[in-house]
Amino acid sequence: MKEEIHYLLGKENLKIIQSPDCFSFSLDSMLLPNFVTVNLRAKKILDIGCGNAPIPLILSERSKAQIIGVEIQKDAYDMARRSVTLNQKEKQIHIVHDDIHHYATLFDHEEYDIITCNPPYFPYQTSSIVNVKQQKTIARHDKMLKLEDIMKISRKLLRNNGILALVQRPERFVDIVTLMRKSNIEPKRVLFIYPKKGKEANILLIEGMKNGKPGLKILDPIYVHDENREYTSEIKKLLRMNG
Amino acid sequence: MKEEIHYLLGKENLKIIQSPDCFSFSLDSMLLPNFVTVNLRAKKILDIGCGNAPIPLILSERSKAQIIGVEIQKDAYDMARRSVTLNQKEKQIHIVHDDIHHYATLFDHEEYDIITCNPPYFPYQTSSIVNVKQQKTIARHDKMLKLEDIMKISRKLLRNNGILALVQRPERFVDIVTLMRKSNIEPKRVLFIYPKKGKEANILLIEGMKNGKPGLKILDPIYVHDENREYTSEIKKLLRMNG
Repeated sequence: MKEEIHYLLGKENLKIIQSPDCFSFSLDSMLLPNFVTVNLRAKKILDIGCGNAPIPLILSERSKAQIIGVEIQKDAYDMARRSVTLNQKEKQIHIVHDDIHHYATLFDHEEYDIITCNPPYFPYQTSSIVNVKQQKTIARHDKMLKLEDIMKISRKLLRNNGILALVQRPERFVDIVTLMRKSNIEPKRVLFIYPKKGKEANILLIEGMKNGKPGLKILDPIYVHDENREYTSEIKKLLRMNG
Repeated sequence: MKEEIHYLLGKENLKIIQSPDCFSFSLDSMLLPNFVTVNLRAKKILDIGCGNAPIPLILSERSKAQIIGVEIQKDAYDMARRSVTLNQKEKQIHIVHDDIHHYATLFDHEEYDIITCNPPYFPYQTSSIVNVKQQKTIARHDKMLKLEDIMKISRKLLRNNGILALVQRPERFVDIVTLMRKSNIEPKRVLFIYPKKGKEANILLIEGMKNGKPGLKILDPIYVHDENREYTSEIKKLLRMNG
């Protein structure tokens, strides 16, 4: 399998191994670890379906917590592990090659301060989208990991007032907040990302708190590109891009 | 009671009677009738808790439908009726002085194309807010009309694929979408209004469709004021302001 080493977006100190055959990090996985509220006292963070580990790598720059990434696909797991080594983050980041559905035996319950997940999407048109590559199919469809599963798992693994942060398409917003509430994870912060002025939002970042009180904040919206097709200053700030 | 006649925001052809003692039209009630999707074939529109009728008046400029406003408070009802006459809209707008909880006998079921409501808010801190004036208390608290009631009533009165449009504080967003789904009113369009750049959203406009398919659109956000504290061009466009 062809592999490449890239710098993570705007990070001169973080490299990642990826493959066009398998999958590459996306803007989504850059946004989520920068969006999520990271308490200084956080001790344990879990990234569900970590792929080649962009989210754990970025989180490691924001927190001293122990970060665990779990990935079911062998190729992605392998790249993730080597990316961690490449960045000399072996002491902080642990990549687990397993199915998150085995969480009950894999992970301590009610121990995690933060859970992140960039889950599969395409909810209302699954029949029309079939990818040839097995990896892409697993990564993009929620055959393997449904939103319901993520909520159930998070409810079990998060400590009281722990944070679940997801990135998704805005069209699934209603599903997410409904399922969060059912799992006693109260939606608290939402950030909509717009490709540019005059367009509908195409990325949803959402954070819920286990056993949190109701009351949602809709953060100042962010446009990715300006009229000159350059990154806006606000997206650069969100991504903590160097320079 | 002191009364004044004002032009509705940016409308040189629409006047409204209001009273500082009772209540005046707000930006919320200007936004909602401009936001809601108005099908040209719509025949019947209902505005729940119409106050002095700003929403019916603005809707009358967008639709040929019969518009009914229902208002429980005598003073507001009286001003609404006279505002309708002042604008020579008696043939199109009917104001009903009654409690919407009596909807079962007041209105035909499954007949309405559109229902609008600018409901009371302050959900999580009711104890700290007590207004001296009875009118303001009724208008601002949801003692009289809860979100649950609005959903139940709308479900009964809307025709299949009819539209319910609400204006609210964003902190109630999760409650609204959860309750809408419970009532088979699927959230379809959301517009967040921000006071200005760099602030959280403070107004939520949301539209759901009875028996609609899932799939939510988050519209391009709108800022009310620019750096010079002037109305932005986008808010003027949304309000269809003249000049």
